[in-house]
Amino acid sequence: FRRTRSLNAPSPIQQFGPCGRIMKNSAMVMTIQDPASQRLTWYKPPLTVLVIKKVRDAAVLQPFVQLVTWLIEEKRMVVFVEQAVLEEASLQASADFCTLRDRLMTFRDGKDDLTDKIDFIICLGGDGTLLYASQLFQQSVPPVMAFHLGSLGFLTPFEFDNFQEQVTNVLEGHAALTLRSRLRCMIMRKNDGNNVSVGVGKAALNSPIKPPSTFLVLNEVVIDRGPSPYLSNIDLFLDGKHITSVQGDGLIVSTPTGSTAYAVAAGASMIHPNVPAIMVTPICPHSLSFRPIVVPAGVELKISVSPDSRNTSWVSFDGRNRQELFHGDSLRVTTSVYPVPSICAQDQISDWFDSLAECLHWNVRKRQKHLD
Amino acid sequence: FRRTRSLNAPSPIQQFGPCGRIMKNSAMVMTIQDPASQRLTWYKPPLTVLVIKKVRDAAVLQPFVQLVTWLIEEKRMVVFVEQAVLEEASLQASADFCTLRDRLMTFRDGKDDLTDKIDFIICLGGDGTLLYASQLFQQSVPPVMAFHLGSLGFLTPFEFDNFQEQVTNVLEGHAALTLRSRLRCMIMRKNDGNNVSVGVGKAALNSPIKPPSTFLVLNEVVIDRGPSPYLSNIDLFLDGKHITSVQGDGLIVSTPTGSTAYAVAAGASMIHPNVPAIMVTPICPHSLSFRPIVVPAGVELKISVSPDSRNTSWVSFDGRNRQELFHGDSLRVTTSVYPVPSICAQDQISDWFDSLAECLHWNVRKRQKHLD
Amino acid sequence: FRRTRSLNAPSPIQQFGPCGRIMKNSAMVMTIQDPASQRLTWYKPPLTVLVIKKVRDAAVLQPFVQLVTWLIEEKRMVVFVEQAVLEEASLQASADFCTLRDRLMTFRDGKDDLTDKIDFIICLGGDGTLLYASQLFQQSVPPVMAFHLGSLGFLTPFEFDNFQEQVTNVLEGHAALTLRSRLRCMIMRKNDGNNVSVGVGKAALNSPIKPPSTFLVLNEVVIDRGPSPYLSNIDLFLDGKHITSVQGDGLIVSTPTGSTAYAVAAGASMIHPNVPAIMVTPICPHSLSFRPIVVPAGVELKISVSPDSRNTSWVSFDGRNRQELFHGDSLRVTTSVYPVPSICAQDQISDWFDSLAECLHWNVRKRQKHLD
Amino acid sequence: FRRTRSLNAPSPIQQFGPCGRIMKNSAMVMTIQDPASQRLTWYKPPLTVLVIKKVRDAAVLQPFVQLVTWLIEEKRMVVFVEQAVLEEASLQASADFCTLRDRLMTFRDGKDDLTDKIDFIICLGGDGTLLYASQLFQQSVPPVMAFHLGSLGFLTPFEFDNFQEQVTNVLEGHAALTLRSRLRCMIMRKNDGNNVSVGVGKAALNSPIKPPSTFLVLNEVVIDRGPSPYLSNIDLFLDGKHITSVQGDGLIVSTPTGSTAYAVAAGASMIHPNVPAIMVTPICPHSLSFRPIVVPAGVELKISVSPDSRNTSWVSFDGRNRQELFHGDSLRVTTSVYPVPSICAQDQISDWFDSLAECLHWNVRKRQKHLD
Repeated sequence: FRRTRSLNAPSPIQQFGPCGRIMKNSAMVMTIQDPASQRLTWYKPPLTVLVIKKVRDAAVLQPFVQLVTWLIEEKRMVVFVEQAVLEEASLQASADFCTLRDRLMTFRDGKDDLTDKIDFIICLGGDGTLLYASQLFQQSVPPVMAFHLGSLGFLTPFEFDNFQEQVTNVLEGHAALTLRSRLRCMIMRKNDGNNVSVGVGKAALNSPIKPPSTFLVLNEVVIDRGPSPYLSNIDLFLDGKHITSVQGDGLIVSTPTGSTAYAVAAGASMIHPNVPAIMVTPICPHSLSFRPIVVPAGVELKISVSPDSRNTSWVSFDGRNRQELFHGDSLRVTTSVYPVPSICAQDQISDWFDSLAECLHWNVRKRQKHLD
Repeated sequence: FRRTRSLNAPSPIQQFGPCGRIMKNSAMVMTIQDPASQRLTWYKPPLTVLVIKKVRDAAVLQPFVQLVTWLIEEKRMVVFVEQAVLEEASLQASADFCTLRDRLMTFRDGKDDLTDKIDFIICLGGDGTLLYASQLFQQSVPPVMAFHLGSLGFLTPFEFDNFQEQVTNVLEGHAALTLRSRLRCMIMRKNDGNNVSVGVGKAALNSPIKPPSTFLVLNEVVIDRGPSPYLSNIDLFLDGKHITSVQGDGLIVSTPTGSTAYAVAAGASMIHPNVPAIMVTPICPHSLSFRPIVVPAGVELKISVSPDSRNTSWVSFDGRNRQELFHGDSLRVTTSVYPVPSICAQDQISDWFDSLAECLHWNVRKRQKHLD
Repeated sequence: FRRTRSLNAPSPIQQFGPCGRIMKNSAMVMTIQDPASQRLTWYKPPLTVLVIKKVRDAAVLQPFVQLVTWLIEEKRMVVFVEQAVLEEASLQASADFCTLRDRLMTFRDGKDDLTDKIDFIICLGGDGTLLYASQLFQQSVPPVMAFHLGSLGFLTPFEFDNFQEQVTNVLEGHAALTLRSRLRCMIMRKNDGNNVSVGVGKAALNSPIKPPSTFLVLNEVVIDRGPSPYLSNIDLFLDGKHITSVQGDGLIVSTPTGSTAYAVAAGASMIHPNVPAIMVTPICPHSLSFRPIVVPAGVELKISVSPDSRNTSWVSFDGRNRQELFHGDSLRVTTSVYPVPSICAQDQISDWFDSLAECLHWNVRKRQKHLD
Repeated sequence: FRRTRSLNAPSPIQQFGPCGRIMKNSAMVMTIQDPASQRLTWYKPPLTVLVIKKVRDAAVLQPFVQLVTWLIEEKRMVVFVEQAVLEEASLQASADFCTLRDRLMTFRDGKDDLTDKIDFIICLGGDGTLLYASQLFQQSVPPVMAFHLGSLGFLTPFEFDNFQEQVTNVLEGHAALTLRSRLRCMIMRKNDGNNVSVGVGKAALNSPIKPPSTFLVLNEVVIDRGPSPYLSNIDLFLDGKHITSVQGDGLIVSTPTGSTAYAVAAGASMIHPNVPAIMVTPICPHSLSFRPIVVPAGVELKISVSPDSRNTSWVSFDGRNRQELFHGDSLRVTTSVYPVPSICAQDQISDWFDSLAECLHWNVRKRQKHLD
């Protein structure tokens, strides 16, 4: 019984009838492992752990102190936290935390480089913490274990109750792993010398530090009309071909992970994170027939303001770094080679369907009563 | 500049931070060629060609005779047609055809085996011809070149005008190839001895030839309530786990190819055929939150009538072989290893977007006029 | 402060600028009372009450016996039940019921005429009971009070707990009233003599009793493709004008009451029953742009099989009386002058929104957590 | 044969069974004429005509000059135009227009009062001109005749070709009339003394002229999150009762006329302008089950920022007068008694369906070909 694999081509078979073949193209051959079978292992034992906590949420404080204490004292790990966390008033008021404080390593977001310093990431508190972790690591991302403290999130599958047992389990390498693809987004400015990419608009030209020219998003990049009362007119290209023009509130380009975020609110179908795809969803399109589409991961999308559009557009990346897209500028989007390795609480399938039910009430309903 | 590929895992990179790795599982490793680069080649020159024409459409007659004559006389190919075609009254009335008649090879659908006899398939006339070709070849399918005669279809990208040039081109091996995945569907009957699969319901028990137990579909398998006035109650399992129950008119399990057929009418997003996925779309679900979902190709879906459902369900495969699904029966669906190799007129991307515009009027609209 | 009324024309004002007027047309003038203010009153005290109970539901038995006993003994009312109810095995097994039995009036559905015999209707058990009541009274309908026994229904707003107090209250005339409009549907047969309407297809021509030629529906009339695997092609006319053709699984013409039934599953918006409108919703239309529409109550819709359609259609009325619609036949639909006067548990607005939340989980969701 | 009317209550019948009645409430009784029969007449011959032309559209210039010349010279009418029109450079360059100039009456938008000065309005050029006309007349609106110059609009049904004949026809009183309901919107400010309504936010407090406190909209009032990256949390009340809370990009409250504007892009069904209703449509709601709803005209909606919302909202009226809605403020919306009397080119039904097809491509599609 031959069976296809979850992430591969429709078929590993290369022969069609007695004579037909796929033309060999060795540059395009790759060896991959079926993602459905992906599990985490450690090349060497993880020593450094970055703990990210939800900001301004009192409910996270106690678990945070508990977790960090345990990681340092029981697991003898080196714990990193963001500098700003130490300055939170509510934490400073915690007696338990004061003794802990000096044993923490800190970094400043946007100033210190974490590349190759972090072996493992633990998130506490909400989907936003994972988006933040994604944004900290613009290249390779260490494995992430994410706890929800209130109700289950799409990106935070673990319950905190018996965290010791669960973290120990993961540190020993027993866990399914979902590689959540990210989108690499580059803004090409018209007026920018040789049309190289820069990350921000006019406002930033005088800023001393050159901002990043590229953004990796875990959920989506959104192009909208911003504060303009008029519809956006946006041109969409795919691998260099003009595909369509968008007239409406805007356009969402999302990962499968992001398909259950803003895209689903705009009418998209929901895509399991193991599907190698990019979702393109219009926001309130003027055309009744503008249904969302799903294209293969790895294509390159180009988005620009239509030449005859009366106004510009605005771009934001996972809800951040909002900036204007002017006539002549373009946004390039493709799948990044650096996914976020997100550790499953159960497995890739169960985690996803559990969060569909919990977060979106997917098909939760009253049953039609059965007759006797 | 490293780039991901259109059909592979989110990333070919297997390392996450300094310590994290994907655990090696050699049984799950595969070597594939990026489908975006797939082109047709011929291992040896194709000699036999099966020509499938739309039935009962007068507009197809003349092109059919033209094409077959040319294939035999110019290309010296052996042409197969279905026996029933020779019996069409309108063809028998054609003088051109009568001289041709004896030079054709014929087969009878459901009786003669075409395996390994056909090198190449040409379809004339509509998406239905490709569905028919798919159904003829339940295992390996020879490359298919499909002409539309009226307007462009999703599965029939070629125009007939200069067919000689275009067929010659393809026979020389110059063509992009879309491998359209199919779904392998098996019905497991409760009452059927050792629960082995059989292909049809009670009605067929007396038929002399045991019908096929497995159906390959190119578009979709549909489970609906049939003539019952009551809602269907259907249980859906994925890789053995109960995922949800469907209360409504039914459920569509479709390939990416089928996402633009019945599924789109039921509200699904549209998926490019290169995306390795299966789409699950409810038909008029009783629950407002039952949005369609996209799961990875290669999972196994199991569908059965809910034990407490007051009525049974009906199943059909690409609109054919309709049969009842009783309490205790189940339908298993997964991606087949035998896709349909569909030859592109332009390329995989352009062909798809052209047919979205032409067949579904996708985002075709009046533009908001620009102010001077 | 002048205010418009909930069901009237956009404005009671008939003058537009210094000179413009609405042309007087006394035949079209009517005097109505704003439905938002409609309350039930009794011209004389109601004496006869029809009790309709859900069939084959054990949970309804005890309440049914309780209610009927109380109506007879305490309220001295004459209670009608359907003959078939008395024959239910489970009721006959009830000792309480046996003493009651002889004091009940009975009628046989389809044989006895209830016109002018019933002052008041009580339904026990589910939305189906109200659909049944609607069908019993094809002209004027007595006021209906409907109890749900499990969870709240769209048409069954009352809880049974303190039924004595609630029924007493209604009998004293204290209750808001929702007039639920119905649709009057007539099938005109092509082959039928002078093209007068008859209620059933060919199959019934030999039946001794002429079936009713007109159906009143409370939820919807559905035209679909029946068992045919091909799409329906249906022509839709409004006040004699061809409006559009439907290609898809079918078409739903529903009342505002029915907008939350099948229509909502097919994608319609939900309409409060006080809005004088008819909703037209396609079922899985082939066209992406075929959005549901809402037209004024009182228009006349005509629906027929398109002359070039390859197959016929099927019609059903509130899920009953399913019959084939042949080429040349037509279905006429308009708002009936006989609504169902449905007694509110609270008021017209609260009852509706409560059932949206309870039955459809309308906008029930997890709130985004507030930051401290 | 008794028939209901298009805009009235579900039934003119007030009796239900032998005893049930609608309780008389003379304060709530009204006499109206069925809107389906509404035709324009003139109390006295119209003398003054306001001509509104689309701004900055060169294609409108020539028709504008033609029309105005004809109205003055042939029809001897007094023509009003906005002062700003006379100052358009392109008009000043027109020789024809210069001789006309002194014979025009002008007014300044926002300064001069047009009440009782205008008998008739002609719009030239696009749906925006009718929105503008609506905004000029915050109380009674003279009859409006609207010409499209490019393609048919929802609000501009007349073709310009033989305008002389058509205008003459209307001036003689031969025309069907659609009364397009408007919504009366009031903003109640928390900090504003005795909580009386004012029309604008903080920014305007120092402005010398008190802006209007009330806005009449012909399409819709939109409440959205403005530039905030966070979801809006908006509470919705109906006749004083809390109905639901909106979490998403925002909320659209629209007239039937507006149902084919922004609301349809956000997923609403389309409502014929003769239906007395208000449509409530969420914009990209976080909840999958938040379907649009249609409530009776004449209810009062109240919308406010949820007390626990982290950010404020923004309101705009037919796309204008955008302003912030703060915590504690509220927006009241109900149907106005002053509709826009919009003159039909054909009739109320044909005009609407023609614009659905032309503007929204409603159900325009490729037909499935019929078999011979």
